[in-house]
Order: sequence, then structure tokens, then C-alpha cells
Amino acid sequence: MALIVQKYGGTSVGDTERIKAVAKRVIETRESGHDVVVVLSAMAGETDRLIQLAHKVANEPDPREQDVLLATGEQVTISLFSIAVKQMGHEALSLLGHQARIYTDRSYGRARISEIRTEPIWHNLYKGCIPVIAGFQGLDERGNITTLGRGGSDTTAVAVAAALAADVCEIYTDVAGVYTTDPDIYHKARKLQRISYDEMLEMTSMGAKVLHIRSVEFAKKYNVPIHVRSSLVDEPGTMVVKEEKSMEKVMVSGVAYSKSDARITLAGIPDVPGVAARIFTAIANEDVVVDMIIQGSTGDTDLANLSFTVPRPDRQKAIRILEGMKTDWQTLEISSDENIAKVSIIGVGMRHHAGVASRMFQALAKENINILMISTSEIKVSCVIEDRHTAKAVQVLHEEFELDKPLQHEIPE
Amino acid sequence: MALIVQKYGGTSVGDTERIKAVAKRVIETRESGHDVVVVLSAMAGETDRLIQLAHKVANEPDPREQDVLLATGEQVTISLFSIAVKQMGHEALSLLGHQARIYTDRSYGRARISEIRTEPIWHNLYKGCIPVIAGFQGLDERGNITTLGRGGSDTTAVAVAAALAADVCEIYTDVAGVYTTDPDIYHKARKLQRISYDEMLEMTSMGAKVLHIRSVEFAKKYNVPIHVRSSLVDEPGTMVVKEEKSMEKVMVSGVAYSKSDARITLAGIPDVPGVAARIFTAIANEDVVVDMIIQGSTGDTDLANLSFTVPRPDRQKAIRILEGMKTDWQTLEISSDENIAKVSIIGVGMRHHAGVASRMFQALAKENINILMISTSEIKVSCVIEDRHTAKAVQVLHEEFELDKPLQHEIPE
Repeated sequence: MALIVQKYGGTSVGDTERIKAVAKRVIETRESGHDVVVVLSAMAGETDRLIQLAHKVANEPDPREQDVLLATGEQVTISLFSIAVKQMGHEALSLLGHQARIYTDRSYGRARISEIRTEPIWHNLYKGCIPVIAGFQGLDERGNITTLGRGGSDTTAVAVAAALAADVCEIYTDVAGVYTTDPDIYHKARKLQRISYDEMLEMTSMGAKVLHIRSVEFAKKYNVPIHVRSSLVDEPGTMVVKEEKSMEKVMVSGVAYSKSDARITLAGIPDVPGVAARIFTAIANEDVVVDMIIQGSTGDTDLANLSFTVPRPDRQKAIRILEGMKTDWQTLEISSDENIAKVSIIGVGMRHHAGVASRMFQALAKENINILMISTSEIKVSCVIEDRHTAKAVQVLHEEFELDKPLQHEIPE
Repeated sequence: MALIVQKYGGTSVGDTERIKAVAKRVIETRESGHDVVVVLSAMAGETDRLIQLAHKVANEPDPREQDVLLATGEQVTISLFSIAVKQMGHEALSLLGHQARIYTDRSYGRARISEIRTEPIWHNLYKGCIPVIAGFQGLDERGNITTLGRGGSDTTAVAVAAALAADVCEIYTDVAGVYTTDPDIYHKARKLQRISYDEMLEMTSMGAKVLHIRSVEFAKKYNVPIHVRSSLVDEPGTMVVKEEKSMEKVMVSGVAYSKSDARITLAGIPDVPGVAARIFTAIANEDVVVDMIIQGSTGDTDLANLSFTVPRPDRQKAIRILEGMKTDWQTLEISSDENIAKVSIIGVGMRHHAGVASRMFQALAKENINILMISTSEIKVSCVIEDRHTAKAVQVLHEEFELDKPLQHEIPE
């Protein structure tokens, strides 16, 4: 017998029929002898609908009140789900953030869970009743409702699993698991059996939308095994787990890509100390996150070039900040470009294998794909390329590292 | 400067434009120097939509979970309203049942308020912030969400006004106040300036839908003046207040009618002691509320007749119970009739004036309206008639008691 936290969201609870189907699935898990705690997110589209309502009333809705509004989405699903379970003859009890005692800080719209007082959950498990917890929402120390941000229900589920020391946290989605790359962009993408937390973090920050990034951080911190699987079929998905010795043998586990960045290029900046610091401090002060940075020199010894990437929605903001510097640096020229993509290879094995990056560069070069920028971390190499090459690049890298074949640490299926 | 509780509901908060209009109205009250506490109900139609959702999942949704579901309706309006007020440059803070500390018993779907711990409301008033309270919902002593039943937001508003010892509780609706009778049935119906709690209770239980009956009981108990008025126009409505000496001069303040009852007639029941007790105990045990009862005798000395009224939805249930008695009373014959209406005249002055009832009977007789049953209370006389005569009866009684003219205790307009 295991203690399992199951999280269902979006289309899995998209209408009352789907909610009934999920209730049946949860009851099956219980009848096979396990204890289940359920975490639900809002019906697909509901959070967007509520945000639109708020924006009809104000351009920038008050963050506290917007959280009160958004929290209704999960309240609807947990009550409907509990009604469905009880209708099927089992016991269930819905718990809102304040009832499940999920405490957070006070950052409305992107709150972080600080504590879960698990008494109400244990009490219900003790009674043989399925606790049904509202994802995405919590309570600050003053009793205000907070929400955790997009995808926050994943984090609720993992945090609950950590607090209960559950055996596994199952995240049900509309895909079958974590893939070596996006199956929509390359048909040979293969479902991974296992992946380490760090690899999953890199995949997620590179745009793989399977899991909320904070849920993976949480799972890593508290060593909660996550099972990403489909609510539509009854087959194993992907286990996200602590790094295992055998994983090191694999150089690359996945290829990720993202088209969410813009590149800004500065020419004619003075080549003196402190310039980069001044630029990036000004940008950071406006909450714009810079990812890759490349500094080059020109023929002119007094002037330098600088390129960096920012999220696309922040491009105009960043340019506005930089325009303000033209009064001091009259040679400054600013250009920008959104037709770029970032392609990354990810794998914990890179730590112990040399030459992974150069194999990536060669593979891209062979296809005449020009690399605009490069950045590397311990377990990732990312290249910025022209976005029209994205699909080709993903395919080439997938082939180069033989990702269509089972990885060495995976049990042959 | 006064402390005013304002309640808006239904169509007044029916969409985001109406919510903004209400926010403006509340701010105007504040800017004219008063302190305001706002109580809101759900957007028009929202509670019905949620009930339908629940019934898609189960025929008889679990009552606890249905209350969790229904409570989202008010959560949406109070957050949107607070967003609107803040957008207009004023301070507002939404308070859910658990945040406003509105405690109730545990009767899901028809809970009664037991206590309001007013600290959060006072704290916000002290800070110059408008508290915006979710109507209709509360919390039982175990932290479960409860709801007060249809129209329950009126009761929340009056209870909050009582707990704060507010100067007045303003109930905003889509009608201009309380009328001498339903303006839809008789065009000479006149808006009352003042009406006593007891008269309002009789009006409400007779089908006038202006106020939730429990809110009037609450107001009477704690002596909270209620001002029923329209959210669409800025003119005085009707004050519902403690009975005043001058009100006694008026025999009749209003004419009410209801078409919600059915009449059941029993013939051939044994004329021995204990029979009526047996019948009405059996019916009461099945939660059917009997209103009027008439016992008559037939020519046959051993057998009696009995007529009584029950709510129309309970007619079949009552008949089923009575059919079971045929085994003991083989002469029993059961018939029933839904084509009836109840017409009532209401006025606290009746206590001190003789002959009010006979004037009513004569007025109806003059129009050839046959009276089927009669019941009286201290401040009300009700007659059951054929329902096709309803409009005529209301008109005749309105004229007989000169309700189109200002009542004696009303200040001439």
C-alpha cells in the first residue's frame, strides 16, 4: 500500500464528464489498496476567463483582489469532484487553501509555499476519506488568499506530497510523459522512462510545459518522486527522480527549444571598465531578465559591441532603458531581432563527458545552421540560431545523440 | 456622519459595467461623509448556473460540497467590486465568510448566522478602507463553508448591520421599494414610505420577494432599520422599521397574494378525537408544511370533512401519505386542487380596529368572488379563492382600503 498524491488539471477536469472520469480513476486507485490525496487545478480556460473579467474592471487589477477572484476556479473543480466521488459511493472532502492550511508568503500572483499544516489531510486519510485539495492557492500569515502563478497546482501537489512524505506525486496531464523533444516538432521524439530533477529543470526552463518549474525545484529539494503521466490512458509516463549513477552514462537526455526570446545588439559602446555593469544594472532594476550575453570587440579599439537576449515581451522596455544612455554615449547604436530561437541539449552525463558541445556545433554546422550565440551550464549547451532553422536543428541534434533509441539507464521496454 | 451597510445583489451586480456603477455609488456615499460597509451577492444567474453544474455531476449533490461550489458566486463579485473601487482611487478590501468571521450553524444550504466577529470589519473601517463582504456565506465552527439559502445576502447585510450597530442597512434591489401590492398586478400600487417589521414579515411570507424573510426577522430582533431602495435611481425607497404608534391608525398597509399553494380535501374521515392529530403528525413527519386548515362536518354524524393547504411541490407527497391511511379508514376520499390563490390584507392597525375582516369579505362578495378558506392572524386576514379571481380581488381590496392614497402615518410627499 502506498500513499499517492494525484494532481489533475486543465483539460483533465475540463467539464463535468471529465471530472466524473477522473473521480472514477481516483476511486480505482483507492480500490487497488492505496491511499490517495487529490490536488486539482481549475477547469481548462477558467483562469483566463476570470483574468479577462478582472481586466474589464481595471487595466491593472489590484493583485490581492485578483487572487481572490482566481482562487474560485479551483474551488469549483474541487467541489464538483467531491460531489462526483460521493455520488459514486466513496467519501471525499474538499479543502480550500485555508482549510488545507497551505501557507505562503504575501507575493500575490506568484506566492511561494512556506508551510503546510497537514492535520486536516491526515485526519481525512485516517477516516478513509479522500482529501481533495485546491491547487494554485494558499493563505498568507494574515489570512489573505494568495495564488502561486500559472501552473501552480503542480507545486501544490509536490508540496503536499513532500509534507506528507508520500511515496509518489502523480501529475496527470494531456501528454503521456516527458519526451526527448517536442513530438510536434519531431516525430521521432521518444517518451523518457526516467529523468533527473536537474535535467527536468533545464527542460522546463527551456520551454517544455509539462511541469511548473517551481514544482520541480520543490521535488528536488524534498526528494519527492514525480510521475508525469496521461489522464487519458492507463500506462506509465515519465518518472522525475533524484539523479542516479547510471544516468551519468548518458550524455544527452533531451533536446529543448524556445522561441520566447529577443536579441538586442548594441554597437559603439565605450570599451572601458564598468560599462557592462551599468547597462545590466539598469536593465535588472526594471525587472527584465537577461539570459545570454556576448561581448565582442570591433576594429575600432575604443568601442565594443554587446549582444544579449531578453524575453520577447520585455524587448521594448529594454530598448527604452538603453535609449536613455545615448545622452552619455553618443556613438551608441541599438538594434534588435525577434527572429531567433534557442536550441539546447540537456543531460547530466555532460559533467563527465568531454566534447558534447563540439559535437553539437559540428552537427549544426553540417546542416549550415549558423550559431549566433552560445551559452553552457554544467548539464546544458544552448545555441541561439535563426528561428527558421528550429525544426531542422532539433531533428539533427536528436539524431546526433541517438535519442530515438532507449537511453542506457532505461530498462529495455 | 453615519455608519451604513449597503447590500447590492442580482442584476445590480449583473455584469462588470453594473459593478463599476455600484462602486461609483458606494464611493459617492463615502465622499458625502459616511462610513460604508458593502455586502454583495452573486451576479444574476450565477447561483443557478452553479447549481446546474452540480446537478450534472449528481442528482442530489452532497450538501457540504454544493455550498463550497455556490460560495464562489459571491467571491467573484466581491473581488471584482474591490478591484473597481481601487481603480477609482479608493481603498477597499474583500472579505470572504471566513475572513469576515461570519459563523453559522452547520445546516448546509440554509445555515443560520450565530455570530459575527467584527474585528476585521472595524479594522478596515478604522483604516479608511471599505470592507466588501461576501453575502450568503459563512463558516461553521469546524471551518466548513456554509450558505444561508436563496436571498441569504439580505440576511448577511442585516446581521452585519446588527453586529456593527450600524445606523441603517440599505438593501438595493431592482424595484424602488415595498409597494402596497404587486405593481404588475395592479397599476395603482403605491410605494410605501414606512412599514413595520411585522407587516414586512407577513408581506414576505405571502410571496413579496423584496426581502429574504430571515433578514426581516433578524432586523426586528436587533432593531436594525432597513431601507429598501433601487440601485438604478437616487430616490428614497421604503423604510422597514420598528412599529410606531402612528402606524396603528392605519388598518391595512398592503395587499399580498400567492399562488404557491394547493388545497387537499378529505371526505369520509371518522369524526372521533385524535384523527386530525394523526393526519397532521404524519404529514409533518415528512417535512410538509400545512398552512390553512378547515374542518367541517357532513350530514352524516359519524364522518367529517377536512380541507387544508400545502405548498404545491408537496401536493403529491401529501397525497401519498394520506393514501396510506385508507387501510384504516375505508371511507376516506382524497381530492386536491391547484387552481387556488391566497389573497391577504396586512396591517398592524388591525389589532385595534374591529370589522376589518368583514369589510374584506364584503368587498370580495360584492364582486362575486367566492371565499374557499379563511385564516387570520393578529395583523393579517387571508382568504383562499379561485386563482382566476386573483387580480380582481387584489384590485378590489386595494380600493376598499384606499391604499392608493398616502397612509396616515406617512409624511405627505
